[in-house]
Amino acid sequence: MLEEFVGAIETHLEGVLPSKSEHSKELVEGMRYAVLNGGKRLRGSLVCATSYTLSGCYTSALDSACAIECLHAYSLVHDDLPVMDDADLRRGKPSCHKVFGPAMATLVGDALQPLAFNLIADCDTIPGDKRLEITKVLSRAAGWKGMVGGQAWDIQLTPDDTLSVEELRRLHAAKTGEFFVAAVDIGRIIGDERLDAQVSTGLHRFGVNLGEAFQVVDDVLDCSQSSDITGKPIGQDSRLGKQTFPVLLGIDAATAYAHELLEKALGELVELGFSDSVLADVAKRCVDRIS
Amino acid sequence: MLEEFVGAIETHLEGVLPSKSEHSKELVEGMRYAVLNGGKRLRGSLVCATSYTLSGCYTSALDSACAIECLHAYSLVHDDLPVMDDADLRRGKPSCHKVFGPAMATLVGDALQPLAFNLIADCDTIPGDKRLEITKVLSRAAGWKGMVGGQAWDIQLTPDDTLSVEELRRLHAAKTGEFFVAAVDIGRIIGDERLDAQVSTGLHRFGVNLGEAFQVVDDVLDCSQSSDITGKPIGQDSRLGKQTFPVLLGIDAATAYAHELLEKALGELVELGFSDSVLADVAKRCVDRIS
Repeated sequence: MLEEFVGAIETHLEGVLPSKSEHSKELVEGMRYAVLNGGKRLRGSLVCATSYTLSGCYTSALDSACAIECLHAYSLVHDDLPVMDDADLRRGKPSCHKVFGPAMATLVGDALQPLAFNLIADCDTIPGDKRLEITKVLSRAAGWKGMVGGQAWDIQLTPDDTLSVEELRRLHAAKTGEFFVAAVDIGRIIGDERLDAQVSTGLHRFGVNLGEAFQVVDDVLDCSQSSDITGKPIGQDSRLGKQTFPVLLGIDAATAYAHELLEKALGELVELGFSDSVLADVAKRCVDRIS
Repeated sequence: MLEEFVGAIETHLEGVLPSKSEHSKELVEGMRYAVLNGGKRLRGSLVCATSYTLSGCYTSALDSACAIECLHAYSLVHDDLPVMDDADLRRGKPSCHKVFGPAMATLVGDALQPLAFNLIADCDTIPGDKRLEITKVLSRAAGWKGMVGGQAWDIQLTPDDTLSVEELRRLHAAKTGEFFVAAVDIGRIIGDERLDAQVSTGLHRFGVNLGEAFQVVDDVLDCSQSSDITGKPIGQDSRLGKQTFPVLLGIDAATAYAHELLEKALGELVELGFSDSVLADVAKRCVDRIS
């Protein structure tokens, strides 16, 4: 099922991204370059997997899955900008601003945000009240309380700043975790007809643990894996003097911590009777990955 | 009424913008700096004025008015960035990136977008189907077909490129006009209970003409008014080698053209029986301004 989700998301993204423009060919090309770049589609798959686990259906979740992938892609384009992380490589290819220039890359990110919210508002296969609920979840996760808030905190840290593990967890929860939680919450909003409070709470906790596990693994890969495999500049965190879990805990303890978080996430699925679901498969893929 | 709208929008913006953050004080300060800077609130006032003209009420339009002002503010922050227009001054004060740095200013803009869509989704005083309709209108106007599309076209022009008047009109329609049209359409969605097709079409045409008039006046002010009055760097268009209406037509003919467009816009209001409405006042303010 997981491969099916990824394929369906890829096909759907092809269709919802603009292919031509009377204003700027480069903008449209940049948007496609930024999104259709072989991403793992973990966040989109989480939306589909959650909906599928609850309802046996995921097609009505595809617009929302693509919306979260567009927002994720925009965040990577802006993160890579020279004024931010100044990263030349993304998924093994030149980052967006290396191809289109930093001004156009800024606009590419700027255009992917409203596209995401348009996709959700325009998704006629989901009832209106659910579309509004999804918009609330996603706009909160993408904003000052979520991803951008975490990124703002991150860029202000200097190599002299030392975070506690608890502070690093909060930073990552905002910067990365909120999107994983949002993906699961959105999949539940789409798929859960019973509006079961226990399911809602359990899946939310699943998302929180999974989001943190994902980020810890990301940190470990940044300092242990080769650039050929991750497709992005390696040792970037250390070059930028960033605080990471491997820095605070060491690589082995950080790896063990990631698996502990994955077990907690999977434990939530067991409680809900979803231990053999595709949701568990997606969770494992988020942690047992090499890139 | 117009002063009342501006005051109400200002007060509402104060409330909907974050005032503190556990992640980044600077991000929140930057968002407030970018939005609460003495803007004329023309777009927000258009939302309120349209709703008021149709229904006699504007309070339920305040969230949408603030949403469009947040999107407008984000676009100014990103437009002013060193990689874009590199403008040091905005509304008589240092532009956002001069105060907070270009990285944080990028994030300030990035955070204002989802805040805008959150405001609309969360606006309980408007029925859900109208909130979705407003989200569609605004996300389209802010995206690759609208504002960002126009801006992308604009930054790719070189001093050697010569646009026809018709091309310049299309560029401005995307970059500036779409937001004026969106403001009027949104005010109509909120205020019009009768869903009258004639009202919808007439107001839409009003918005198109007003948006173009606004931009022509903007171009004229850029090359004729002092920086003390406009509060932004003057002669910027010419410094950047931008194509403008005064460049193509001359200042006098451009000024006359702006008034011709205003008359067309006001003519639409006359047709609809709104000639003495506050909507006409807002339209006149968009054109008869010195900054």
